[in-house]
Amino acid sequence: MKLPAQVKLVDVGPRDGLQNEKQPVSAEVKIGLVHRLQDAGLKEIEVTSFVSPKWVPQMADNAEVMHGIQRKPGVLYSVLTPNMKGFEAAIAAPREEWPDEIVVFGAASEAFSQKNINCSIAESIERFAPVVEAARAKGIAVRGAMSCTVGCPYEGEIAPAKVGYLAQLMKGIGVQRVDVADTIGVGTPRKVQAAMEATLAHFEVDAISGHFHDTYGQALVNTLAALELGVWNFQSSSAGLGGCPYAKGATGNVATEDVVYMLHGMGIETGIDLDKLIDAGVYISEALGREPNSRASKAIRTKRAG
Amino acid sequence: MKLPAQVKLVDVGPRDGLQNEKQPVSAEVKIGLVHRLQDAGLKEIEVTSFVSPKWVPQMADNAEVMHGIQRKPGVLYSVLTPNMKGFEAAIAAPREEWPDEIVVFGAASEAFSQKNINCSIAESIERFAPVVEAARAKGIAVRGAMSCTVGCPYEGEIAPAKVGYLAQLMKGIGVQRVDVADTIGVGTPRKVQAAMEATLAHFEVDAISGHFHDTYGQALVNTLAALELGVWNFQSSSAGLGGCPYAKGATGNVATEDVVYMLHGMGIETGIDLDKLIDAGVYISEALGREPNSRASKAIRTKRAG
Repeated sequence: MKLPAQVKLVDVGPRDGLQNEKQPVSAEVKIGLVHRLQDAGLKEIEVTSFVSPKWVPQMADNAEVMHGIQRKPGVLYSVLTPNMKGFEAAIAAPREEWPDEIVVFGAASEAFSQKNINCSIAESIERFAPVVEAARAKGIAVRGAMSCTVGCPYEGEIAPAKVGYLAQLMKGIGVQRVDVADTIGVGTPRKVQAAMEATLAHFEVDAISGHFHDTYGQALVNTLAALELGVWNFQSSSAGLGGCPYAKGATGNVATEDVVYMLHGMGIETGIDLDKLIDAGVYISEALGREPNSRASKAIRTKRAG
Repeated sequence: MKLPAQVKLVDVGPRDGLQNEKQPVSAEVKIGLVHRLQDAGLKEIEVTSFVSPKWVPQMADNAEVMHGIQRKPGVLYSVLTPNMKGFEAAIAAPREEWPDEIVVFGAASEAFSQKNINCSIAESIERFAPVVEAARAKGIAVRGAMSCTVGCPYEGEIAPAKVGYLAQLMKGIGVQRVDVADTIGVGTPRKVQAAMEATLAHFEVDAISGHFHDTYGQALVNTLAALELGVWNFQSSSAGLGGCPYAKGATGNVATEDVVYMLHGMGIETGIDLDKLIDAGVYISEALGREPNSRASKAIRTKRAG
């Protein structure tokens, strides 16, 4: 197996994870989670979303969270900005509280795009064009989250050509890197590789990250499949936070703990301290009143208990 | 990815799975499980163990179960026989109730061998020699289960050379095929491949099966790693039955449902009807009073419920 020697993980738990959790979580706890993640060695953290609190009440404290985190040098802090209003809110604070990167998004499925944001894929990208331009003019990086790249709850299987189409649109408006997301966790290795290959026609491998949900238990095997194509950036959530409101029974993002356990076991460096990461997952899980949704975390904590 | 076009799964739930479940399960339910598995398309089923009821009370009904199952042509029924007494018990019934294959076992870890069966690896294999001989003389096939081939709860990581040593001893006494088992589920892809490669020095790839526990969530990714070496026989338990009494918090065998979901998603044939398999897992889980330990089962049942 020829695989990358190191992997960079983006913990998306504070945003993508918590956004899909029903219980309200205080800004203090969110800030505590970000601090624990950076202390554990995470170099990229998706912190919050500058979205209308009407749509996502869980993220209403976005400015408070961005203000409250004590940044660690070398760590990239990203936020989701669904439109120009969100972007403006994200940079309304003093410059040192700006995000290092904003995240825009689009679906590889027309049906998902229509149901989720009421417009076509092409329209959604057009609307993001001025946001991308404004961010880059201010020296803020732009990442594009591409959802439903393997399967869609409405359309079923998604053809790789649709992923390529979305990647091309993203590239066209100046998005610098993209996430290939299996939003509902239905993917398996060959399908994930096909989605990655369609994206590789438009972006360098260094600019592509994998984002897999573990609904059908396939997230790690899909990660390995992507690693085999040279992809070395992946997104995950500590404690497997989250879910998907559009797919009943969907579990959250793959647990960062499980990914780190696999990578370290394969001799692939992440710079992450797994024990500290497990503690971060326990911290947020206790705040949510439940167990971390991570097998590696459970096994290691059981072993710790003796 | 060059992978086998088809895979044969051995469902070891009725034996390896249930043996590690504390609640007693009636012979009727065990027989019902075997029938549901064969109806779902399983071509190999590990049915029971002819072990002393003093050690494993859950398997005390071994003869009753073997008597009760209505065999389906083309299906291989295996049983564990820990010694000559067990083998004799397994063939005490009329010939049509004999197992098609017996399973003998050994550990790749000296410490595990000592703690588990009170003798060295070499001694354990010596003791099995007459059992293997007797079985083959009667035309019964012999499989060797090699435990702790990646890690051991007492010794930690296991060197591939120790796996090769055990495989060679197994070969020497006439064992026809072997399982490379990650008994405590600590393995990751490269370590699993190293254990497989050490075994490939002594057995053809067609005579090797992978057996992965999902304790750290690594079972599917280890399955893919083995598939990449051409291994196409795997063991699993419907509903992820089982555990490991020697590793606290260890989960059971990887769920057959999750393996089948992955394989079918990759276009690899198994001959298994996933919906029927899910129903078999629900059947045994209801008997145990719990939910199936399978993400694919949960996701598909949630989707069914609409």
